[in-house]
Amino acid sequence: MYRSHNCGELNASHINKEVTLAGWVQKSRDKGFMIWVDLRDRYGITQLIFDEERTSKSIFQNAKTLGREFVIQVKGKVIERSSKNPNLSTGDIEILVSELTILNKAILPPFTIEDDTDGGEELRMKYRYLDIRRNPVKNSLIFRHKVAQAVRNYLSKEGFIEVETPYLIKSTPEGARDFVVPSRMNAGQFYALPQSPQTFKQLLMVGGMDKYFQIVKCFRDEDLRADRQPEFTQIDCEMAFVEQEDILNAFEGLTRHLLKEINGIEIEKFPRMLYDDAMRLYGNDKPDIRFGMKFGELNSVTQHKDFGVFNAAELVVGIAVPGGNNFTRKEIDQLIDWIKRPQVGALGMVYCRYNEDGSFKSSVDKFFDEADLAKWADITGAKPGDLICVLSGETDKVRGQLSSLRMELATRLGLRKPNEFAPLWVIDFPLLEWDEETKRYHAMHHPFTSPKPGQIELLATNPGEVKANAYDLVLNGNEIGGGSIRIHDKKTQSLMFDYLGFTPEEAKAQFGFLMDAFQYGAPPHGGLAFGLDRLVAILAGQEIIRDFIAFPKNNSGRDVMIDAPATIDNKQLEELSLKLHLKQ
Amino acid sequence: MYRSHNCGELNASHINKEVTLAGWVQKSRDKGFMIWVDLRDRYGITQLIFDEERTSKSIFQNAKTLGREFVIQVKGKVIERSSKNPNLSTGDIEILVSELTILNKAILPPFTIEDDTDGGEELRMKYRYLDIRRNPVKNSLIFRHKVAQAVRNYLSKEGFIEVETPYLIKSTPEGARDFVVPSRMNAGQFYALPQSPQTFKQLLMVGGMDKYFQIVKCFRDEDLRADRQPEFTQIDCEMAFVEQEDILNAFEGLTRHLLKEINGIEIEKFPRMLYDDAMRLYGNDKPDIRFGMKFGELNSVTQHKDFGVFNAAELVVGIAVPGGNNFTRKEIDQLIDWIKRPQVGALGMVYCRYNEDGSFKSSVDKFFDEADLAKWADITGAKPGDLICVLSGETDKVRGQLSSLRMELATRLGLRKPNEFAPLWVIDFPLLEWDEETKRYHAMHHPFTSPKPGQIELLATNPGEVKANAYDLVLNGNEIGGGSIRIHDKKTQSLMFDYLGFTPEEAKAQFGFLMDAFQYGAPPHGGLAFGLDRLVAILAGQEIIRDFIAFPKNNSGRDVMIDAPATIDNKQLEELSLKLHLKQ
Repeated sequence: MYRSHNCGELNASHINKEVTLAGWVQKSRDKGFMIWVDLRDRYGITQLIFDEERTSKSIFQNAKTLGREFVIQVKGKVIERSSKNPNLSTGDIEILVSELTILNKAILPPFTIEDDTDGGEELRMKYRYLDIRRNPVKNSLIFRHKVAQAVRNYLSKEGFIEVETPYLIKSTPEGARDFVVPSRMNAGQFYALPQSPQTFKQLLMVGGMDKYFQIVKCFRDEDLRADRQPEFTQIDCEMAFVEQEDILNAFEGLTRHLLKEINGIEIEKFPRMLYDDAMRLYGNDKPDIRFGMKFGELNSVTQHKDFGVFNAAELVVGIAVPGGNNFTRKEIDQLIDWIKRPQVGALGMVYCRYNEDGSFKSSVDKFFDEADLAKWADITGAKPGDLICVLSGETDKVRGQLSSLRMELATRLGLRKPNEFAPLWVIDFPLLEWDEETKRYHAMHHPFTSPKPGQIELLATNPGEVKANAYDLVLNGNEIGGGSIRIHDKKTQSLMFDYLGFTPEEAKAQFGFLMDAFQYGAPPHGGLAFGLDRLVAILAGQEIIRDFIAFPKNNSGRDVMIDAPATIDNKQLEELSLKLHLKQ
Repeated sequence: MYRSHNCGELNASHINKEVTLAGWVQKSRDKGFMIWVDLRDRYGITQLIFDEERTSKSIFQNAKTLGREFVIQVKGKVIERSSKNPNLSTGDIEILVSELTILNKAILPPFTIEDDTDGGEELRMKYRYLDIRRNPVKNSLIFRHKVAQAVRNYLSKEGFIEVETPYLIKSTPEGARDFVVPSRMNAGQFYALPQSPQTFKQLLMVGGMDKYFQIVKCFRDEDLRADRQPEFTQIDCEMAFVEQEDILNAFEGLTRHLLKEINGIEIEKFPRMLYDDAMRLYGNDKPDIRFGMKFGELNSVTQHKDFGVFNAAELVVGIAVPGGNNFTRKEIDQLIDWIKRPQVGALGMVYCRYNEDGSFKSSVDKFFDEADLAKWADITGAKPGDLICVLSGETDKVRGQLSSLRMELATRLGLRKPNEFAPLWVIDFPLLEWDEETKRYHAMHHPFTSPKPGQIELLATNPGEVKANAYDLVLNGNEIGGGSIRIHDKKTQSLMFDYLGFTPEEAKAQFGFLMDAFQYGAPPHGGLAFGLDRLVAILAGQEIIRDFIAFPKNNSGRDVMIDAPATIDNKQLEELSLKLHLKQ
């Protein structure tokens, strides 16, 4: 063992002890007659001291050669520091070094190994092994480990069994694009990497393993949006002999446990909201309910006047921005510019100041009088001092736009407090959603989701209206989990494939094994999957998942550190019965 | 919730309680006026009773329709059984059913859902979800979960951090064949699935994460031998600032913990054996030391006579089979046939009976007298009543053959007791091994393994003699883990790639990132990886790993349940810039 202690544990109680430490040179201050070195490891920093009087000449000379990030081992005596550092757990002591071994030299790192580094994103990713030495990244990875351990221990205690499902499975065109793996032994055939262990966990239910979970990597070959990864980690869960209520309770229990164990926060009961209400009140199926600014629908009080924009609109909807009457005209204009950006896409915004004296001043005073505006205030819940922001247009679009505005305002007003946690169940999702591109309905969750009891007949006449036994768990405006009660009989599953446009042959080729399984006694079952990367980030009061992944990929799906993907040998291609077919 | 209790928990203390159970019909006995149904779930079996007098007519009629593996829900009262079954935890009670709901019917399963099933391997794999309903498979999966949990909790308590490393990495020609994943976004380029997270865990050490572990899937595209899987699970571990002794202690600690926690067995200190001794005494680098039959080298006492076979042999070596003098001539002839099979490949066997009266009788009495044979007995440790089996030939071959014979005899003699556990460290493995096919040395462990201190110079003159800081953990004749102290400086690593026949360009292209990392202050480090599939099987007293994998693949790498791998759409191929290039 290269050390008797780590660099974070020595304190005044160890004074006069002989110790051996090993770690990296964080920094070194050479005063000529005296050299201080901050020695760093995973656990902290301990100050080393070399001085002309007390340190042997050769060691003192050697200490002068130490550069940043050198790996060294020292032996020495713990002594009291003359000027203590109360910000450091080891700040009362230092080590008077009697032996120094340079275990490995280091060339100058491309960025500083400090909490606030001078390294940009790209450089940090290329040298991720150096980035991991920095406290913010190191602590994020340790935090992730703690969350995963807490999840496993909680679910195990609750009788769940972690079962490993295969990574080399079968490609199915439904859903997102699969990563595929050519099979050498079965020429011309491919495995696919799982987008989720969905069918396997359902088969485990058919197999009687009635409480399953797995923390598991999943894969999606999608054009990457910011902060999406081609490989990501799920806490995948499934239960048999349960109804929706049981699933909600089980995983509310898990989430409550995490909030308590990891964040020290007790939350009694998670509120529930219908999907339709979430869309109506927040324009969003994952509302951040840490703050208000609920939507107020204003059609009934706006479409009686000559304002053509509102009269033509399917939806007129507003929010009351708390204290927003303080915004200057310039600030409001900037807000309007913000919502007109192509990413949001609103055509404009009507606003109304609610003055402290109870009077109103709107951007459409030409059309609406004080009595009208008072109704707006009433419906949006505005109070004197607030600003009412109103958008109008096509319902789906305008809801999305106002939701973006609401989130942006909340961020600007500091209402999205990272240490406040507001979980929320959103339930009764639609079963299907219309896809403009393919001009047909797709499963909103996935084709194994069961419709609400008694609604299956609606599929024939009004498919968009059918609600599913599907639910999302939302935390602070992020979907951290989602799931559904599944179909568990062959007839309904066949019907569903039929409605989704599968021919019976396609359904059989892709999911025949599942429908076969349903014939041999499938129990009612359902489940939920958490996105671990995001869950961990949010529990840590952050939103960027990349910081919680040891070796993330960039937006082109590349690992810039190891330089992957890369070309492979022709011999490898040949063995796989493949040829490159690059576009010219 | 479909049930108030599970099928394994009700006993006499619940008598008169109203309960709801759900599960599968294990079997049903219809006596006309009375029907008993065994209801099964993950937790056990509970007997249901329907009778003409006490059960309503409609329910009684419904009960008559129940077939094997129907999924049902019943409500009823717990009553005392008239004829109790002491072999069942629920054997004192039965449920007098008052409500019966058929949740799902079942067609007849293709094999019986019993501990001893009538289903063959192939059928069981095709319907693995039914196989998992059987206790032996279900219990194996639960056992695996318990082992994995015990590993995680132990290592976490010891300060190890589980870090997830990426699955989409870079292909390297060294070692076994990679599975590759074509990148759509980077046309013509491929990811590889990891054969192990080796380089990533070393980079984590460079990153200061000084105690790492991960239970992780690994992938090897090899022609599958029996009981090998293309995807398998490792407990992957690495530590920084350690020497070999520290690694051995750390993971001996883990293994001791598992043996205690899982098997209730306390083992004080694991013995250690040099690789050279293991080969000399057991002909094998993973000796089963639950029993004796150590090799005795007989060259010095056999090559002075006229027996040409021995005189020509590089090695003459024997074992004393305890009580083997009881073998009939026919049994010995069968043994000789057994070792002549191509899988073993011996040309013949000389044997010598050690009679109870102290006399000897050998198959080569023509050449060797009693005094000679007494020396054989002395060297092999034979006692009266034993049989000495002697093979001769080229050292490496004959050791392998005698090792096979030793294991076979141990199995026949019942010496490989599944509930006895004999761990063993085998240390000081050679750094390189000669490959006949490519006519060059390959890394025996992998190219990151460090040679023993002071031996690196030997690489130039006598590479086969160089020993490595490499070690295996052996349990009951199976390698359950292996690892090494790694090279941690760029110079040595470059030298090693050089000796292994990499050009500097190849080394840089494939492992440049690792050698770069070594320049920025890499600490001394080393590690070990356990094969979880095998470890679990052995802890359960078994050796077939497939039974401990929920959804294993067959020997052609196929999942016969989901029928993967399979062909993919031309559109998918096109998106990946690939064309099939099948041999005609």
